[in-house]
Amino acid sequence: MPFCYDYARPALTVDCVVFGYDETELKALLIKRDLPPFKRMWALPGGFVRIDETVDDAAKRELFEETGLEKVYLEQLYTFGDLHRDPRERVVTVAYFALVKMSDHRLRATTDAQDAKWFPVRQTPKLAFDHRDILDLAIARLKGKVTYQPIGFELLPTKFTLTELQKLYETILETALDKRNFRKKMLSMELLEPLGEYTEGGAHRPAELYRFNKKKYEKLSKSGFFFEL
Amino acid sequence: MPFCYDYARPALTVDCVVFGYDETELKALLIKRDLPPFKRMWALPGGFVRIDETVDDAAKRELFEETGLEKVYLEQLYTFGDLHRDPRERVVTVAYFALVKMSDHRLRATTDAQDAKWFPVRQTPKLAFDHRDILDLAIARLKGKVTYQPIGFELLPTKFTLTELQKLYETILETALDKRNFRKKMLSMELLEPLGEYTEGGAHRPAELYRFNKKKYEKLSKSGFFFEL
Repeated sequence: MPFCYDYARPALTVDCVVFGYDETELKALLIKRDLPPFKRMWALPGGFVRIDETVDDAAKRELFEETGLEKVYLEQLYTFGDLHRDPRERVVTVAYFALVKMSDHRLRATTDAQDAKWFPVRQTPKLAFDHRDILDLAIARLKGKVTYQPIGFELLPTKFTLTELQKLYETILETALDKRNFRKKMLSMELLEPLGEYTEGGAHRPAELYRFNKKKYEKLSKSGFFFEL
Repeated sequence: MPFCYDYARPALTVDCVVFGYDETELKALLIKRDLPPFKRMWALPGGFVRIDETVDDAAKRELFEETGLEKVYLEQLYTFGDLHRDPRERVVTVAYFALVKMSDHRLRATTDAQDAKWFPVRQTPKLAFDHRDILDLAIARLKGKVTYQPIGFELLPTKFTLTELQKLYETILETALDKRNFRKKMLSMELLEPLGEYTEGGAHRPAELYRFNKKKYEKLSKSGFFFEL
């Protein structure tokens, strides 16, 4: 035990909530724990912060090591600092979250994890530690975010229909939205550019394709707006 | 040095950004450091998290010990986890913020601080550590918050004029707002109740007094809205 201090120190960890969208469902990326405590239980990917890496870098590293995911934009969610989160000892964890297109990433469990898998956010197995609380806070944060920031650029195909965009909102918000109202609000923001092109084939009527106006998307990402439900 | 671990651990601290409003200016509460590093420099109130207290409790305790402030609703701001924030060693800090009415609180420096004082947020002395970055992030967060949550309940007198409310917004947003537009938007939210009473005396024309509709205030605090500038 070579590292000694005058005062007892909590251990510091990171945990990552990665939401995946596959055009029908919102999923969370979980790993199966290899070691005690909670051995063989599912948990959020994460682990200890090393003394020579930033907390942000620790989150990226642990996510990559345990799931193979890289080049993911992790945003800080919240720091969980209660006393008995971990049965071993006092551990404070900095939680991060991200939202990715599932098909952009291939999973690969490596160190400290037996397995890595996507689960529908409301149908996960029982999670280790307080990870259900962390996941729930991330879901709430994500719902809040879509009401004041544009979403979809990294999640939808380059050209998409308004129905596909509405489906994304409905999936995240876990609620059905009125079609007419949704279209009216979306189009009034000038965030979308109609392409004059239409979907082909399939059982449905051709639907117009849109793309995001990147400038407006970035502007609204910074300034915010209010998408009233 | 009785506390030894297998791996080196960052020290964990808390820092508090407390904004004070005095009906004319937005100020930040700073303390003068008693000990090195940055001895005699001004800094945010804060300190080490004890092994047997939650991170939230550490923030409350440090704020009280260093400034005498209590019963303040501290909200978590962000965790700063870069490598060289502290010249002594690796220290990760969880930052909190709050907004209070200055006249509700009396300052009293106690442990670890020579002095505690309010400074206009843009006219502070040079701050210790990365505390200027923490303060700047808190200012940005506060500006964001007022565009989607009601503000003022704890900061204004029970009965206030629209001019006083506008002054609060202008102070936080650091920008002048159009009077007509501000009134129109504010009144359209049904957040304010006109009292049919008017200010008396003084050099100005009597102005109508309002109070917050507490129910609506709480509802909008949860649901959010968008106050377009």
